[in-house]
Amino acid sequence: MNHPDSANPNHSHTQALINGHQDLHLSLLDRGLAYGDGVFRTFPVQHGKPQHWALQYKKLASDCAVLNIECPSQEALLADIQTLFYAEDGVAKIIVTRGESVRGYGYPSDIKSNRIVLKQRSPEYPPSNREHGVHLYLCDLRLSHQPKLAGIKHLNRLENVLARAEWNDFNIADGVLLDVDGNVIECTMSNIFARFGDQLLTPLLNHCGVAGVTRERILNDAPRVNLQAKQANISLTELMQADEIIICNSLFGAWQVIEFNHKYWKKQPLADQLTALLAS
Amino acid sequence: MNHPDSANPNHSHTQALINGHQDLHLSLLDRGLAYGDGVFRTFPVQHGKPQHWALQYKKLASDCAVLNIECPSQEALLADIQTLFYAEDGVAKIIVTRGESVRGYGYPSDIKSNRIVLKQRSPEYPPSNREHGVHLYLCDLRLSHQPKLAGIKHLNRLENVLARAEWNDFNIADGVLLDVDGNVIECTMSNIFARFGDQLLTPLLNHCGVAGVTRERILNDAPRVNLQAKQANISLTELMQADEIIICNSLFGAWQVIEFNHKYWKKQPLADQLTALLAS
Repeated sequence: MNHPDSANPNHSHTQALINGHQDLHLSLLDRGLAYGDGVFRTFPVQHGKPQHWALQYKKLASDCAVLNIECPSQEALLADIQTLFYAEDGVAKIIVTRGESVRGYGYPSDIKSNRIVLKQRSPEYPPSNREHGVHLYLCDLRLSHQPKLAGIKHLNRLENVLARAEWNDFNIADGVLLDVDGNVIECTMSNIFARFGDQLLTPLLNHCGVAGVTRERILNDAPRVNLQAKQANISLTELMQADEIIICNSLFGAWQVIEFNHKYWKKQPLADQLTALLAS
Repeated sequence: MNHPDSANPNHSHTQALINGHQDLHLSLLDRGLAYGDGVFRTFPVQHGKPQHWALQYKKLASDCAVLNIECPSQEALLADIQTLFYAEDGVAKIIVTRGESVRGYGYPSDIKSNRIVLKQRSPEYPPSNREHGVHLYLCDLRLSHQPKLAGIKHLNRLENVLARAEWNDFNIADGVLLDVDGNVIECTMSNIFARFGDQLLTPLLNHCGVAGVTRERILNDAPRVNLQAKQANISLTELMQADEIIICNSLFGAWQVIEFNHKYWKKQPLADQLTALLAS
């Protein structure tokens, strides 16, 4: 079904396909709305080409599998992206929900998932984030432990929403989230790395957090910038002793942290090296 | 915007209003879909009259306040229910989402919430649930602790979805959820009470769980069936020693548990007394 663009200015730069059909509106019976029963991905598209697609799709398929949600085929998703972007740049957001049901947490074994692809404008980050580094906020909210959902980019994101609402200073790029044990996990919209000498550590995400594709790429590619990367438990005290802190996601690449929790770090070259590596 | 009913048979018995306008489809930019950023209520409507409306609205307003979501007025919601139900019976589901935004967990302070009211058919539960009592399943999934979301009926319900998917035996009415500490919290779609003599206990919900309106009513009205009700930590071992276990929600009232975790209880009159009390 086609809708005219509503008067809402948010809509004017967004186009979307639901199961391959142009539409900006989803059924109220979709379990993505009712229960957050779905997963999503957000990644850049350059000249119509989804960046690092193989990893993005692998993660989407893996997240769907954990939740027993039917994953759309690569072919269908790539056709959707082709339809929306042609040869343009932008950001693609894929949402896969379990499908529709009238009431109740249970669902039939033959439920059909809904495949949603949105085309959005590329975000405009302050150039100083890359040039000079970023400031981080320490969130009060502590992430809860749910091993059955840990690492998955699912649609239950109220913790991130509440944490992001804790600050409204435009100079702050993101907020650091600790878990209930006081370990560093991630930021609200990015993963985090801490460098100690030639060791590049990122938090283990077996209790909570989102295991992003860019985090995975940095873990794999760190030797190319002469670092040894691994996952580890990192307390807030340990993070504060890092030689350098880096945050990352698929949209901005890597930014160095120059101030967090009343401590300052001088600007170093690693974030730019990683961003170049990630863009290659 | 009006949509024709889709071919999906789920739709044929559902009618809905979005912000007072007849519609079965919501914007893809709604944060209810993107993040589960919203709350909901489900309750019976009899002869067009929402049952125990004052308590339902109080809980809706309270949940919205905790999440800093703009709560619709009683007048608007009651007008929606009147439009949908006239003098009919059924089940109303209210969803209030924070509103629409393009990307990111942050939201503007003047964001307008979306008010959704759905009319659904009354569920048909097996008569034996009331006559003979119900069987419960012990879920493997443990509820995580998030004090900032505890008690709220929000749209982040993946834990309930995963727990409900653990069994597919139609003889099982619901599944008991423990938290990460092994305390009994609730069932996937109902609250739980355990009677010990003249004491009627229900789990404390300060770490997780949904504090339902029917649970609150039973806590308040227990003296009318000569019981003293209170909230307490209840371990699984303690639950198994109860003289009687009752589950409750706004749609079915109260059912007695006759079998759970390999133990049987004889049918007693309390569930029927509570159901009568709840219907009054």
